[in-house]
Amino acid sequence: MSFLFVIEVLGTAAFAISGAFSAMQKKLDLFGVLSLAFVTAIGGGTIRDVLIGNTPVTWMRDMTTPITILAATLIALAFNRLLKNLKYTLFLADTVGIGLFTVIGIQKGISVGLHPGICVALGTMTACFGGVVRDVLLNQIPALFHTREIYATACIAGGTAYFVCDSFIPDQPADIIAIVVIVAIRLIAVRMNWQLPAVKE
Amino acid sequence: MSFLFVIEVLGTAAFAISGAFSAMQKKLDLFGVLSLAFVTAIGGGTIRDVLIGNTPVTWMRDMTTPITILAATLIALAFNRLLKNLKYTLFLADTVGIGLFTVIGIQKGISVGLHPGICVALGTMTACFGGVVRDVLLNQIPALFHTREIYATACIAGGTAYFVCDSFIPDQPADIIAIVVIVAIRLIAVRMNWQLPAVKE
Amino acid sequence: MSFLFVIEVLGTAAFAISGAFSAMQKKLDLFGVLSLAFVTAIGGGTIRDVLIGNTPVTWMRDMTTPITILAATLIALAFNRLLKNLKYTLFLADTVGIGLFTVIGIQKGISVGLHPGICVALGTMTACFGGVVRDVLLNQIPALFHTREIYATACIAGGTAYFVCDSFIPDQPADIIAIVVIVAIRLIAVRMNWQLPAVKE
Repeated sequence: MSFLFVIEVLGTAAFAISGAFSAMQKKLDLFGVLSLAFVTAIGGGTIRDVLIGNTPVTWMRDMTTPITILAATLIALAFNRLLKNLKYTLFLADTVGIGLFTVIGIQKGISVGLHPGICVALGTMTACFGGVVRDVLLNQIPALFHTREIYATACIAGGTAYFVCDSFIPDQPADIIAIVVIVAIRLIAVRMNWQLPAVKE
Repeated sequence: MSFLFVIEVLGTAAFAISGAFSAMQKKLDLFGVLSLAFVTAIGGGTIRDVLIGNTPVTWMRDMTTPITILAATLIALAFNRLLKNLKYTLFLADTVGIGLFTVIGIQKGISVGLHPGICVALGTMTACFGGVVRDVLLNQIPALFHTREIYATACIAGGTAYFVCDSFIPDQPADIIAIVVIVAIRLIAVRMNWQLPAVKE
Repeated sequence: MSFLFVIEVLGTAAFAISGAFSAMQKKLDLFGVLSLAFVTAIGGGTIRDVLIGNTPVTWMRDMTTPITILAATLIALAFNRLLKNLKYTLFLADTVGIGLFTVIGIQKGISVGLHPGICVALGTMTACFGGVVRDVLLNQIPALFHTREIYATACIAGGTAYFVCDSFIPDQPADIIAIVVIVAIRLIAVRMNWQLPAVKE
């Protein structure tokens, strides 16, 4: 539990910092930077909660997430340059973050009785759609949809692993296995420079 | 019933293909094309469901819609050129689609006790706002808002017909009449090149 | 009550007119202008309601808001030039509007048991996020996030005043005090040309 809690905080912080940096690049003001950090960090989970009717949405019911985001944004503002040298650390936090958030999304889907395929979609949205909201607000086509990176794809693979595990390997922790699959695929894909196939018009 | 089911599948497929084509035009990757097909097809109904609190939203509760979208997207990817020769067929499927989706939206509004005027707005959003989400994600001003086409206007007219029917012609099927009105107005408008009045600044 | 009702109608109208004007500037068609007027006026409250699960969302349950928006849009279309001479009046209506809408959002947050900090965020979103939706639909980065104006900041300050009041000055009307704080800060900030600090990348 405690270990997953650490991952959740790190993942949330990584998302917030990514939002804050994108906002700074586009020369937003202080309120804009804070807002972008927030929507990037809570966007995916919020879309999930709204779609399944889990309201008030999760981040409103506990101050851990808002405080994490606020702290991460202040750090991004104050230690801007320093953080840019921690690029790989932030990438790792983002990676374990999408692993955990995918699993959380899947489990919420299961808890309201949705089909496994829908649960995987819900998990992927939880992990990835904060960045989509960030890019829409910054007036650019969401990176998630055109960079050909293995990002959402890793979440879909991990989500599938979750249900395979759950059905065929009863005594294993499907959540941990799914996170490991997502992190592994993401890390290998970046290292190997794997890309989604291009789509020809 | 079965006939309306066929229309629903055709309309959903037409929406998905429109989303996939727009995504390909903007050179999105495979995940982007699939995502755009999805949001275009389910965007309007999702906004409706979220606004009235009908959650988990409809497309998550039955696999017909997701499978239709997935199949339509694969067809769009594989038979790209062929489909472009079926432009008029797709236009017809889109047209009966907005007719049916408007009526579905109206009936959901009635079922939660909303005012007829709000129900018409809800039906129009159900039919038309998937395209709005598609355009926002592709970083362009929604076509629905500036092309001066008779599209949402046809839905509003058909929605009004629904309630006129319901109040004054008790034994007629308001739903079928509304769909016919929407399809007729849309077809005539395109044929006659009718446009909304320009708005001067 | 009646006085607050007048403010609500004026604020809604000011928001709708701002949306209609922005839409006209971008050369949207008639349906686009009407849609933008609507989303600008009801966007903030809708986001609030959806996040806390207060559905069907407020504007759908009473015809006052839709009729106000419709009337304001028609006035914006018909008396375009005249209204542009009333710029300061519209600014004042917008200002008392964000004051009231912030308080309404806070009170809805309290009614579902949220933390004061979340309530302030909810109030600020209620007041300010209609303009965010407007700008996203018009394909521009939301003004709220980059103009450095004291706008959301005034709402945050007034929201904080609400809870300070509520805790320490028991017999005072926290709602009126919060509105006064918001209006005062906004007016003084514009007069004095106060700005948020720039954020350096």
